[in-house]
Amino acid sequence: MSVTLDDVHSAALALRGVANRTPVVTSRSADSVTGASLFFKCENLQRVGAFKFRGAYNALSRLGAEQRKAGVLTWSSGNHAQAVALAGRLLGIPRTIVMPDDAPAVKLAATRSYGAEVVLYDKHQQTREELGRGIAAQRGLTIIPPYDHPHIVAGQGTAALELVQETAGLDAVLAPVGGGGLLSGTAVATKGLLPGARVIGVEPALADDPARSFRTGQLQTVHTPETIADGARTPSLGRLPFEIIRRLVDDIVTVSDEAIVRAMLFCWERLKLVVEPTGALPLAALLEGAVKLPGKRVGVILSGGNADFRALKAWL
Amino acid sequence: MSVTLDDVHSAALALRGVANRTPVVTSRSADSVTGASLFFKCENLQRVGAFKFRGAYNALSRLGAEQRKAGVLTWSSGNHAQAVALAGRLLGIPRTIVMPDDAPAVKLAATRSYGAEVVLYDKHQQTREELGRGIAAQRGLTIIPPYDHPHIVAGQGTAALELVQETAGLDAVLAPVGGGGLLSGTAVATKGLLPGARVIGVEPALADDPARSFRTGQLQTVHTPETIADGARTPSLGRLPFEIIRRLVDDIVTVSDEAIVRAMLFCWERLKLVVEPTGALPLAALLEGAVKLPGKRVGVILSGGNADFRALKAWL
Repeated sequence: MSVTLDDVHSAALALRGVANRTPVVTSRSADSVTGASLFFKCENLQRVGAFKFRGAYNALSRLGAEQRKAGVLTWSSGNHAQAVALAGRLLGIPRTIVMPDDAPAVKLAATRSYGAEVVLYDKHQQTREELGRGIAAQRGLTIIPPYDHPHIVAGQGTAALELVQETAGLDAVLAPVGGGGLLSGTAVATKGLLPGARVIGVEPALADDPARSFRTGQLQTVHTPETIADGARTPSLGRLPFEIIRRLVDDIVTVSDEAIVRAMLFCWERLKLVVEPTGALPLAALLEGAVKLPGKRVGVILSGGNADFRALKAWL
Repeated sequence: MSVTLDDVHSAALALRGVANRTPVVTSRSADSVTGASLFFKCENLQRVGAFKFRGAYNALSRLGAEQRKAGVLTWSSGNHAQAVALAGRLLGIPRTIVMPDDAPAVKLAATRSYGAEVVLYDKHQQTREELGRGIAAQRGLTIIPPYDHPHIVAGQGTAALELVQETAGLDAVLAPVGGGGLLSGTAVATKGLLPGARVIGVEPALADDPARSFRTGQLQTVHTPETIADGARTPSLGRLPFEIIRRLVDDIVTVSDEAIVRAMLFCWERLKLVVEPTGALPLAALLEGAVKLPGKRVGVILSGGNADFRALKAWL
C-alpha cells in the first residue's frame, strides 16, 4: 500500500479550516547568497509549530468510533508528540505519548499543555517502540507512528502541495529527512504535480542513515545520534517512506551541525523567522553548497520552529 | 498640509512590486492569552526588516531629477537609515546617513551594505538634526527626515491599508510610536477605511513623550531615553505626525522595558517570528493589560525584526 497524489488531496480536504495554510516567503538576501530563487514554506508557522500537525490530524481524523473512544498512543522526540496531543484534543480522542527524557523542554511542556499523558523513557536503556507497543497492547490503544503510516505521509505531503500550488513552477523542492514522513509526502505531492521537478532530502551528517539507505537500497540504522537536529534523530527511515523515497526522491545529502547552526541563525537574522535546527537543514545544504541549483526556482520547507531558547544561548 | 487616505492609496501604487506585501498571521495562543482575536501584520518580513522601507521609498520616488542627482541625507537610529539606503540604491540616488554611534551593530552593518555613506555622531554631544542639516546645506542634499514628512507618513500608512484590506473588519489597530510616522499613517489608513475602529499607539514608559504630548496637546520632549526599544528613542513626535495623531488617534499607552522583552520572547517562541523590541510594543500592551480589548478583532503591527543578537544573549 503506497501513497498517491489523490491521498494527499484527500488529506488536504481533511485539514481544510483546521491546519494553517502557512505563508510562502521569499528573501532577496537568501537568493543572492545561494544564486537560486528560493520559496520558503513556513511550516514553523503551522499549528504546534511544525508540519507534524498535518499528518497527525489526518491520521486521527480517519479512525473509527471504537478506536477514537479507546484512544491513541505515539512516540516522538517532540513535534509529532505535540501534533498528536493537539489533534486528539480537537477530535476528542484520549492520547498517550512516549517521549525521550532528554527531549527539548519546550516540546515536553507543550505536549502536556495540550492535555496528553506523557510517558518518559531513557533512550540509552529502552527503545520507544518496545515501551510504546507494550502500553498500547495493555490499554487497547491505536498506535499512530510518527512517519511509517500512509495517512501520516499523505498529511505531510499537503505542505508541498500548497507550496507548489502557490508558486508558478518549481525546479526543485528540498525537505529535511529523519524518519522520512515529510520527505516521502513531499515527493508524492511534488512529483504528482510537477513530474520534472527534483526532490532532495537533507539530513545531519551525524544521522546519515537515510543517505546510506538511499545509496545502498537497504534500510540502514543509526543509534542515538547526537546531532542538534533533534527532529532527525530517528533510528532509521520508515519502511513505507523508504519505499516512496527510493522511487521518487532524486538525492539525499548531508550537512554538518555547524552548518545547521549557521543556517538557523541566517533564518533568524535575515528571514526574521524562528526555525529549529531540523527546520534549517535544507537551507544549510544550499548555503554550504551541498546542493547547488544556480538560477533555479527552489521550494524550501522550513519544517518547524520549536527551538529551545536555553539551547540557543549555547549556540550563539 | 496633512495626509489623506488618497495619499496612502497613492503611496501603495508607488510601492507596488517594490515593497513586500507582508503576510498577516494569527496565533491561537496569543488570542487565548489576550482574549482578543489578533491579526499580526508582519512588517518584520518587509524589505530591510521593517515598515520604514515603505515611507522611505515613497518619499524618494517623488523627488525631481535635480534632487535625485544631488542625493539625499537622513538621520536615524537604524531602520529608516537602512530604508533610505536601500530605496536610494533602487532609485539610483546617492545617500548620506547620520547615525548614532551606539546604534545596533546589525543596523550599522546593513546600512553600509546597501552602499550608503554613514556619518556617526555621539548623541550625548550633538543633535543629529544639527549635524545633518549642516552636511546637507554644505553638499546640497535633500533631507528625508524619518517621520516628519507627508510622503513618509503616507508610505507608512500602507501597512495598515493592507492589514485592513486583508481582514474582514477590525475593531482596533495598535502600532508602536516613536516619532509618530507609523502611528499617524496607520491612523489615516485605518480611520479612512474603518471610521469606527480605534487606533492606539504604544510606547516605552522610558520614552513617554508621545503620551504626554497626546494628553497635554503640546509637543513634549524626552532626552536620550535608555529604553531597549531603540526605534522609540526619538526626542519628540514630529509636528505633522502630532497634528494627525491629535485628530485621529484614540489613545497612547506605555509599557515597561520588562514587558517589551516578555512580548518579544512571546513572538519568538510562540509566533516563531523574530521581532525587535520596538516591534513588540503593541503586543506588550495587550499581554500586560495596558490595552484590554476582550472579544475584539485587533490589528497589531509588528513593525520590525532587526534585533541585535548580541543584545539578545543579555536579555535571555
